[in-house]
Parts: sequence; C-alpha cells; structure tokens
Amino acid sequence: MANNLRDVYIIGVGQTPCGKFPSQAAHVLGREASWAAIKDSGIHARDIEIGFCGHVYQGMGVGQRTLKDIGLVGQPVINVEGACGSGTLAFWEAWRTIAYGQHDIALAWGVENLSKIMSGGPLPLEEDDIEVALGMSMPGLYAMRAKRYLDEYGISAETLAKVVVKSRKHAAQNPIAQFRKETTVEQVLADPLICDPLTRSMCCPVGDASAAAVLVDGETLKRIKRDESRLPIKVLGCIAQSGGYASATGLTCDPSENVTRTSQMAYEQAGLGPKDMDCVEIHDAFAIAELIVTEALGFAKKGEGARLIEEGKSNYDGDIAINASGGLLSRGHPVGATGLLQTVEIVNQLRGEATGYQVADAKIGLIETMGGAQPAMDGITCVVSILGK
Amino acid sequence: MANNLRDVYIIGVGQTPCGKFPSQAAHVLGREASWAAIKDSGIHARDIEIGFCGHVYQGMGVGQRTLKDIGLVGQPVINVEGACGSGTLAFWEAWRTIAYGQHDIALAWGVENLSKIMSGGPLPLEEDDIEVALGMSMPGLYAMRAKRYLDEYGISAETLAKVVVKSRKHAAQNPIAQFRKETTVEQVLADPLICDPLTRSMCCPVGDASAAAVLVDGETLKRIKRDESRLPIKVLGCIAQSGGYASATGLTCDPSENVTRTSQMAYEQAGLGPKDMDCVEIHDAFAIAELIVTEALGFAKKGEGARLIEEGKSNYDGDIAINASGGLLSRGHPVGATGLLQTVEIVNQLRGEATGYQVADAKIGLIETMGGAQPAMDGITCVVSILGK
Repeated sequence: MANNLRDVYIIGVGQTPCGKFPSQAAHVLGREASWAAIKDSGIHARDIEIGFCGHVYQGMGVGQRTLKDIGLVGQPVINVEGACGSGTLAFWEAWRTIAYGQHDIALAWGVENLSKIMSGGPLPLEEDDIEVALGMSMPGLYAMRAKRYLDEYGISAETLAKVVVKSRKHAAQNPIAQFRKETTVEQVLADPLICDPLTRSMCCPVGDASAAAVLVDGETLKRIKRDESRLPIKVLGCIAQSGGYASATGLTCDPSENVTRTSQMAYEQAGLGPKDMDCVEIHDAFAIAELIVTEALGFAKKGEGARLIEEGKSNYDGDIAINASGGLLSRGHPVGATGLLQTVEIVNQLRGEATGYQVADAKIGLIETMGGAQPAMDGITCVVSILGK
Repeated sequence: MANNLRDVYIIGVGQTPCGKFPSQAAHVLGREASWAAIKDSGIHARDIEIGFCGHVYQGMGVGQRTLKDIGLVGQPVINVEGACGSGTLAFWEAWRTIAYGQHDIALAWGVENLSKIMSGGPLPLEEDDIEVALGMSMPGLYAMRAKRYLDEYGISAETLAKVVVKSRKHAAQNPIAQFRKETTVEQVLADPLICDPLTRSMCCPVGDASAAAVLVDGETLKRIKRDESRLPIKVLGCIAQSGGYASATGLTCDPSENVTRTSQMAYEQAGLGPKDMDCVEIHDAFAIAELIVTEALGFAKKGEGARLIEEGKSNYDGDIAINASGGLLSRGHPVGATGLLQTVEIVNQLRGEATGYQVADAKIGLIETMGGAQPAMDGITCVVSILGK
C-alpha cells in the first residue's frame, strides 16, 4: 500500500433535518444536502469531479438522479452500499479518491428515506441469513448484547436509560435532530418494552434525511477560490473494514471487535489515540451500543463505559463528548445518511458552530459507523474517520 | 488527475452459467464466480486485499456475504451500483484502487439473481422518474429508438432480426450462454411482438449469473507465485462516466452520446482507436442497441452499423467481432453481473480460450456497459474498458 497519501480536507458540509418525509424521493433529500454542502464550500458546483452516494434501500441510480438535479452530469457517480455504514463508506470512497490522487474535488453524500419503505418496526434484513430466517432482528440482537453486558458487569437497565436521557438532552440543542424533547430515566424505563431490556426509546427511530461533504486535496485547497470564513477540516484518518469471524462465544454478531480493529488502524493512520479525541460520534442504534462502542474505541475499559454515563463524563461538556448531536437514538438513524450526518456534526463541532451544545475547544473528532450483521460475524462494515482542525 | 498510473493486470477470471436459478442466493452465485476467479489466478484467496461487488436488486451486504463464504473477512468490501453498469463499475473500482496505488490485489465481481425478484417482463424501474411514472419501460424506450433508427436510415426490421440470428449463432458455442439454440430471421420476426418493432427475441432475457476477475499491479504480477500458464491480460483503459443531458431532440435517453464520450476517453487513455480492436462486448439489451452502440464506439458511421450486420462483418470471424459471447440478447443479461461477464469473455478471447468461437489472433478487446435511463439524460452510467495481451 502506498504511503505518500495526499492531505484531504472537508471544505463544505450540508444536511437536511432528520424526520419523516415520506413524500420526498431519496434524490430530492440528497440534492438538498448536497447543494447545501456545495454552497457551504464556496466552490462552484461544476468543480465537483466525482460523486459517491451511500444508501441502502433507495433503488437504482440515486446518486445520478441527485446530481442531475443540481445540474452536475457527466462525471463519474458511484452508489455504494455497506448497510448502516453506507454513508461513511461513501465518505471513505471520496477520501481515498483524493488521497491517492485520482481526483482533486469530490462530493460524498448519504441518504435514506425509510418512511417510504416502512411505517415503523425493525429494518428489513436478508432472509438468506439463517439467523434472520429464524427470527433474528436488530432489536433482538442488541437486546441479547444488552442482557449479557448488564449481567457480566452488574449494571442495571437504569444505566441504559441514562444513555437515552443524555442523548435527548444533547439532541434538544441540535436543530436537525428527530427527537428534541428531553426525557427522564423513569420515562425511558416506562416506555413500551421492545425487546427485554430495551424499551422503545432505547431503540433508534425510523426516519429520513441526507447529509453531504465536499472534499479536496491540500494543493487544491490553496488554489481554489472559496469562502475563507469556512474553516477547512483535515481528514487525519479514514479506514473501512468488513467484519471478521466473531471470537465471542454464545452470541454472534458482537460488533465490538470490528470497531476495535478499524479504530486502531485509524488511530495509527492519524498518529493519535483515544485520549486525543475531543468529540466523538458513534453508532448507537440501541442504547447498549453506546457502552460497547465507547469501550471498543478505547474511551473506557471493558465494562467501564457505563461509568462514563453514570458520571456524566460523556456529556457534550464532559471529558469526552460522545454523540453531542443526540446520536442515532435522538438525532436519528436514516441508515445511508447516518455516517455523513455524524461527519457533518464533527465538522460543525471542530468549526465551533454547534451553537448551544458546542464542545469546548474541540480540535480533534472521531466518527464511527457500523453496518449490518450476519451469522458468526462481528458485523458487515465498519468505518472510522478522524478529523482535525 | 495523476498521470503516473500503475499498470493493472487481470490474472484470473471466473463465471457461472447464465440461466434461471431462483433458489440460489446472490452471494452463492457470487461465491461460485469469485472462487473460480481466485482459483484461475493461482494466488491464495487470502492475498485478496479488497473486494468490489456490483449488483442492483440483491439487497444489503451481498459483497460481504460472498467473501465470507470463501473465508475472506476483514478487508474492505464495497457494494457498488450503477444500474446495468454495476458489474463494470465494480471492475472500474478495482482497477482504480490498484492503478492509483491503494492496494495491490483486488477482486471485482458482479452478480444478479433476477429470477428471485421477478418472473419475467421488464426490469422494475424508479417510479420517481416522470417518464417511468407515465408508463415508460426499457423495451418501450428501445423500441422508440429502433423506430426512429429504422425510419432515419431506411432499414427494415429484418436487420434487427439478423442481429439476433448472429447473437444466437455465437451463443451456441458459448458454454455458459442462456440461449444456445440457433434461430432464423423468420423465427425472430414471427416471435410475439413486445413493443413494435421489437419481438421477444430482440429483447434480452431475464436471468441470473455471476462473474469475477482478480486484478493486480505490474510489480505484484512479477512478485507473486501464480499459475504461469494463465496469460495475464493488461487493462489498457478503464473509464466510468455518468450520463449528460441528451442533445437528441424528440426522444430522451439516447445512450449513444454517453457511450461515445466514455469510449473516446478510454481510447485516449489506451492510446488506441476503434480500428485497433479485435473483439468487442457491447451492451445489446435490445437488438437495436447493437447498431447504435457499434456506431457510438466508432466501428461504423452513423446509420452504417446495420451494414456490419448485413455483411456479416461483426461475426466472431469477421472484421470486428462484436459480442462473440452471444451478448446480452443470448448469453444473457443478469444486470449486475453483465459487465463482468463481458470482461471475462474478452479475457477468454485474448487468452485464446474461446473454444469454438475464438476470434482469430485477438490481441485487443473492448467492453462497453451502459446502465439506466432517466428523463432528458443519455443514460445513468457508462463504463468502457480496453484490455490487451
């Protein structure tokens, strides 16, 4: 693998609100976020040389439809899919395209309109998977992880509820979040039980959105005319990996090994470690995921992720801000858009523009996205990016 | 864009038969072709550093499921979609990954099981497209192109029938082709009319398959232990482009402009022209496409593609072998697999292994794949590759 990678910068970001927009085609949502990112970057739309669109359920040619609506035609457009990691996989594609010198200016966006394909309930999974055929669903999978975690570390469901309370508190300040009303431990625990021990608000909502980023190389950053008031954010690390065989016994699909491996590669690439991170967006599709992934990323030892929650250390104004956006639980989880929504959030934090929930003096941020599950594997895709100003 | 691209070679190819295999999951078909390509390459499966899976309709995580079945886990796997060009888009991804130095050994495959999602009839298109919402289908679109072509150049439907006769004659010798029975002009014209002037055998069939290729850079080719009896095939050019606004008046979605533009870029990259090509696989989803695309690629002037057919010049033993495999019309068109099936065919021809329909002394071959349609555009995706021995 080549070592002479070019520097890559994010010079523009855009996003739509997260919510239910069943009448909006995916490419219409994608256009809104992409156009916002292009405007934010200050470059001319026609300078975009290549586009990568991440989505899962939105059908054929979504990326081409999106860019055509902006008037961008002719350049290569690639639709990429990596389950819930599709958005960050599109980002990774844009990053590598620039880092390895194929193009100088790329657009990455993610989009999903779940309201169009389902009214609620768990995501439709692949019937070819034996566990899915036997009845496995994402809430069931995470509920089993939660059961084991609570049992192994002597933790109560109240801690899971506190993840949600923190998440809603953060989201209340995020203007694009799907759930912006604060909640209490009692309310979370009193919610309908989806899959023991997960109540409804411990599960991320069905929703729709798009988010986008414009990426350029370092030389182009100097060369192009752009809005100098928009602080460029550097991509310090960006790694995509598929899942490995799960070494956990008894329960399949422990996503933590893939997250650990992928983040270690990203830390190494960036020359940084967990202690250097100021703000982090992680894939908390269910409340238990925040604890497991916090540990997998090295922010706490095994079993001690719960303490970060209990002691408020992962609040946006704590030691390490985890999901200041509200995360998947409250900002929302429009599958293919999620990775880019997380990326936009970290860019906003590093720019100091997260009004009302700004992480103080944020210099370095990390994005972790995890996608899919299959029997005996620790997930399908994981992407970890590290950004700095 | 960087000019110091690394040489890229195809060192192994594999494919499944084309046909109807409704009980085969996409990843099972993908595994068969991928494993065949890895075995053909002579390298060890674990040397594959990255995988790209092209498909359209097969759901989430198909690429990861495919490689997991071979025992390949951990490396990045990206599912890519570009309508009927998805397979060659996966190939383009693998090519650029190696050409620009990110990885040394990549696997690209395409797969589709159409029998699982439909029993017959036209492909399901995007209802968000106004033309689709108003009733446009792929056969309708190509039928309109055919009507205009026949009218403009004073050509009869018999010429379209002759495209099918040639296609079936070629496919009869191709062991993996879906339709291997020869036909006559009379039989083709007597077939049920699908959309005037296209009869059923002038339309490609519904079918399932997978095809795969292993790609490496030039230094790796020298370094690795592999089966020396397998002739490496060099990628001389590989270009992916999305469609532009159609300049044709009266009828939208003329794919020929995108094909012309993309092929001209590929010719330039390869330092070659249409006259240098010995064998060509083109995207003949309908009989009229062979005439239009033959011209768009520069093998005949506008309106003169018909003469190649009439005079037998595009037979496998003619001046320029076009679709010696039988093409989409007869070998089959399992959407996401098509681009790689075309690529495997050209590799087989350049290796001199197309027993029974070998293009004499084939040294250079071209693959053209065209994907999708949307209003006022000349198609969604086009990929053109040029290979040489």
